[in-house]
Amino acid sequence: MRLDIQFVPSPPNPNLLPDRIVVVIDVLRATSVMVHAMAKGASEIIPLATVEEAFRMAKAFPRGFVILGGERESKNIPGFDLGNSPKEYAAERVKGKKLILTTTNGTRAFHTVSSGKEILAGSFFNIGAIAQRCFESNRDLFIFPSGDKGNFSLEDTLCGGMLIDLVLKKGKEQIFLTDASYCARILYQKFKDNLSEALHLSHHGKELIHRGFEDDLAYCAQIDVTPVVPIFQGGVIRAK
Amino acid sequence: MRLDIQFVPSPPNPNLLPDRIVVVIDVLRATSVMVHAMAKGASEIIPLATVEEAFRMAKAFPRGFVILGGERESKNIPGFDLGNSPKEYAAERVKGKKLILTTTNGTRAFHTVSSGKEILAGSFFNIGAIAQRCFESNRDLFIFPSGDKGNFSLEDTLCGGMLIDLVLKKGKEQIFLTDASYCARILYQKFKDNLSEALHLSHHGKELIHRGFEDDLAYCAQIDVTPVVPIFQGGVIRAK
Repeated sequence: MRLDIQFVPSPPNPNLLPDRIVVVIDVLRATSVMVHAMAKGASEIIPLATVEEAFRMAKAFPRGFVILGGERESKNIPGFDLGNSPKEYAAERVKGKKLILTTTNGTRAFHTVSSGKEILAGSFFNIGAIAQRCFESNRDLFIFPSGDKGNFSLEDTLCGGMLIDLVLKKGKEQIFLTDASYCARILYQKFKDNLSEALHLSHHGKELIHRGFEDDLAYCAQIDVTPVVPIFQGGVIRAK
Repeated sequence: MRLDIQFVPSPPNPNLLPDRIVVVIDVLRATSVMVHAMAKGASEIIPLATVEEAFRMAKAFPRGFVILGGERESKNIPGFDLGNSPKEYAAERVKGKKLILTTTNGTRAFHTVSSGKEILAGSFFNIGAIAQRCFESNRDLFIFPSGDKGNFSLEDTLCGGMLIDLVLKKGKEQIFLTDASYCARILYQKFKDNLSEALHLSHHGKELIHRGFEDDLAYCAQIDVTPVVPIFQGGVIRAK
């Protein structure tokens, strides 16, 4: 079993993915929103790259069944129902609804890795359940932090490092770590007792603080609040 | 002053480089060879991407003035004078000679970042001198680990992390770290008391051990053995 993580969100070698389990991570905040919304009862999530696609898709469904959510430049999008703070996605807003979501980094990442054998949405909220799923799949793992506008992201890599640490601790023999997965684990070990501190240090964390979303940092650093495992298939994310 | 490091050796955004000091790092082993050869008196180094270019270039000079060096798949190249182990580049072999060098990752990296304002070859051998040069330049720094066949390299990033640490310790105010440079420094802090151990853990280090070059790992982990600062300009590397 090989555990790999790609440090920048450029398209991976397409030959790499068809046999692998892929975990997309955007802690601040797209996959945190997805996991939160699924935990609160959203029926499915459609991740889209652009605002235009999101509006077009929303028109295809009766208004009461659909929630439009997401951000641009961390800010709410005019005409959308919800922004990109996970706690907005409470049961009373999302239960039984289809969520159409578009964000700067995270939603497009799912399309970048769409050739993966099984594609999961990971965050600190469901990291234990994701690790269990990866362990049981017995497939090579490819972690895809969705990054910060194409750049390396501390918080996503930290979450990836935690996933690597958890899978390793499950004790399977013959787990192979790449240089990158080895380093992501070191990053996690450095911050494991204070994940929220790391989110405050990260570039994107600081940007969110500047825009008035500081509360989201500690909120998104919560570990194992749900066992939900969102799976992306055919353009749609559903809970396993 | 901004300290950045790019974790994978894909071509950087060309707009980034023209005002920056760029440090290319290939600890195992191209920039270690370059620094070693310059310290032992090589007059200049021409880094080339292909073996064919190297043979062609060598023909343009009288044979006694030129040394052909490098590797493919870590192995010596038939018809070349020297391989890719730094200690081969002793004074009696290289003093006063022009070195034509071609390696899998390191030599091509110089051409990838050729739009940089000033392009230096860094390794553990000259890390203190490189840090001093970066500090004095007062320019934004862009560290370019040349990687492991396009992938993230532990040993190059570790060396980059040490460079970041040294520049920071010189105490300039208002130094800005990106998420990547922050993480590279954490990697260095983890291994700073045993750099050789890290080189043994790295994927490329293991490959070199497998091919019979284990001695090169501890050799390349030596810190500050020379004050030489090799600068790449117009296709040629010369000592400052």
